[in-house]
Amino acid sequence: MPRYRLTVEYDGTNFAGWQRQNGQMSVQQALEEAIEQFCRHPVRCLAAGRTDAGVHARGQVVHVDFENEWDADKIREAANGILRERSHAAAVLECSPAAADFDARFSARKRHYRYRVIDRRAPLTLDRGHAWHVRNRLDEDAMAKAAALLVGRYDFTTFRASECQAKSPVRTLDVLDVRREAPDDVAIVAVSRSFLHSQVRSMVGSLKLVGEGKWSPEDLQSALAARDRSRCGPIAPACGLYLMQVDY
Amino acid sequence: MPRYRLTVEYDGTNFAGWQRQNGQMSVQQALEEAIEQFCRHPVRCLAAGRTDAGVHARGQVVHVDFENEWDADKIREAANGILRERSHAAAVLECSPAAADFDARFSARKRHYRYRVIDRRAPLTLDRGHAWHVRNRLDEDAMAKAAALLVGRYDFTTFRASECQAKSPVRTLDVLDVRREAPDDVAIVAVSRSFLHSQVRSMVGSLKLVGEGKWSPEDLQSALAARDRSRCGPIAPACGLYLMQVDY
Repeated sequence: MPRYRLTVEYDGTNFAGWQRQNGQMSVQQALEEAIEQFCRHPVRCLAAGRTDAGVHARGQVVHVDFENEWDADKIREAANGILRERSHAAAVLECSPAAADFDARFSARKRHYRYRVIDRRAPLTLDRGHAWHVRNRLDEDAMAKAAALLVGRYDFTTFRASECQAKSPVRTLDVLDVRREAPDDVAIVAVSRSFLHSQVRSMVGSLKLVGEGKWSPEDLQSALAARDRSRCGPIAPACGLYLMQVDY
Repeated sequence: MPRYRLTVEYDGTNFAGWQRQNGQMSVQQALEEAIEQFCRHPVRCLAAGRTDAGVHARGQVVHVDFENEWDADKIREAANGILRERSHAAAVLECSPAAADFDARFSARKRHYRYRVIDRRAPLTLDRGHAWHVRNRLDEDAMAKAAALLVGRYDFTTFRASECQAKSPVRTLDVLDVRREAPDDVAIVAVSRSFLHSQVRSMVGSLKLVGEGKWSPEDLQSALAARDRSRCGPIAPACGLYLMQVDY
């Protein structure tokens, strides 16, 4: 069973997330069906990040086993042709043969997420569905100071969705940077070996309270220390989140 | 008649361009009708750039006369509320009182356009409708060298749509920069006091031929010197073009 590694981009707006769901189109289903259409046997695509409904990806990584050898470029071109024909906003950016023990999920060393906030009065037009619109001006310096307090190895129970299935709530957060990239555009970059369910959106939701002056950086730190989900700020919407890159 | 100056952003995808058209929704009509709904008298919005169907704006500038004084923030908020209610992908970013002789079109000193090309094999997902997808890898250095040959005061007949109504085909192009901003993202920035109809898209269409190696930079220069519309490369699609800023 030759294994291939795919780098996948998608606009999460019209998908029910990465993972297969009953009755709603997921990225996994769209991709598996596109591949099955040309390889003519059932396949299973496994991904580095099981992104939620509405979350986007610039660099999701997937592995998939074929019954026969294929030219990697042909896999990419054939899958993209079918995805496009079916109007799915997903595309295979790269495809290459992978070692039999390569596992998109378990071999991953770092996952890079990016969250985009637009803080301005006017509604979004070009960026609608692709960023979180916050009508209050955010203080990105306070947010950056607060974000730095979450970097390290901690019990992130406060920033973990109640449905999270991970055995341990302890994670090592390598990077949590906040930067204003344009006059009304704030980017938050988060890097870790792995994240808890909704961890990035939970952290961003609380950082927004810091940016609005409703929380101090110390409030964020004490929310972390409380290890109590009820101390988390309102979770940030899915549409601002992008899975950018996975390192192996 | 108090005059106001508006900075307007829009996603051109579902508009028939800036200017009013019979039977198709234009940005001008959407904006005028939104303003008329709260000021309760007819208004006329005049813009710095009469962008074509599908062209986007991050910083279109418009002037409009009211019968009475209004708080500028109220104009912005009311117009945005109505535009949003009607699902128009247009928003007023800024509104301020303007001098009676301020004219969004004729007072403009510089117009800044930006054109975005994504050069990669895979179809677009997140950027669909917001960039030109070119499947061949472009040589941005050759494009930059060629672009520099168009900077200056020239007769741009070659890069002018046949329906262009300007009296003279002579324009002074201040900036025409080509830069790769990401591994598969090439940006072309054009600045001039004013442009001929389709001038930016015509120049970009020809620069793409240089980027593909089909034209040399000298071919572009001789196309300019020919002052002959038939020497222009195929015009670049509207969806990659953004009116970014207007200086007064």
